[in-house]
Amino acid sequence: MRRTTSGLLIASWACALYAAADGPDAIKYPVGYRQWQHVKSSIVGPQSASFGRNGGMHHFYANERAVEGYRSAGAFPDGSILVDERLEVREEKGNTLEGTRISVAVMVKDATRFRDTGGWGFEVFTGENTSAGVLTAERRNTCFGCHEKATHDSVYSAIRP
Amino acid sequence: MRRTTSGLLIASWACALYAAADGPDAIKYPVGYRQWQHVKSSIVGPQSASFGRNGGMHHFYANERAVEGYRSAGAFPDGSILVDERLEVREEKGNTLEGTRISVAVMVKDATRFRDTGGWGFEVFTGENTSAGVLTAERRNTCFGCHEKATHDSVYSAIRP
Repeated sequence: MRRTTSGLLIASWACALYAAADGPDAIKYPVGYRQWQHVKSSIVGPQSASFGRNGGMHHFYANERAVEGYRSAGAFPDGSILVDERLEVREEKGNTLEGTRISVAVMVKDATRFRDTGGWGFEVFTGENTSAGVLTAERRNTCFGCHEKATHDSVYSAIRP
Repeated sequence: MRRTTSGLLIASWACALYAAADGPDAIKYPVGYRQWQHVKSSIVGPQSASFGRNGGMHHFYANERAVEGYRSAGAFPDGSILVDERLEVREEKGNTLEGTRISVAVMVKDATRFRDTGGWGFEVFTGENTSAGVLTAERRNTCFGCHEKATHDSVYSAIRP
């Protein structure tokens, strides 16, 4: 009986995963994010502990609702979308330049839908793929496990004036 | 007689300079440029030949007209404004982060007003100063002397999709 229940739970969890990744509830690719507010940029270099999983040039963008969130002391409003665009880095004659795109990581705020992860949904689109994200439920939880430590509603970055 | 003429010419030139820097014809600080389209970013590092005069993290922004210009094969339309924001670079645990602002360099397109410099006016605002640019006529010509070599209407940068 116990195994049957576990089996059902696993099947249910797998279905939920499928729905989150590909179904009508999937987090969608953030079309037009390059026209959104540029929040800040940084480079995760070879000497960084995060280089293996997150190396490259990062540009952070925010849609209008997320800009409201950055500028408030409280929670980001539902509908906020944050984008972390990660690019390869090219070195050329002492200059550090943008290379090809590695991934587009997205945080979407919906306090009801994502109530188990601080109101934020997480997704990552790799390369030029805009159709489906790659995160498993486990990796989403890993995203949240780190982001929940950020003091401003699970968001680490701050917007520059 | 010759000296008098030279004196007049110098005085006239000085007045023109004054007008360009501080008068009604001055190129104004680009209020709100952080909300404009982020074009691209780069870092001019210590190994670059340009480090002394241009070292730091550069973010390029474009107003709506300038975005039209980037996306056309021809000239940028009058009213185009391009911004090159230069920031100090901070290194922290292998990560390269944004520091304080060094300067805001501006290119403004007005084919009539700036007809002697390819239709582009150049100005630089240092630090947090938003009231008056620092470029002399000589330095403006230096800007143009380099930019006129760029193949797309004196603009070196290209916009990413």
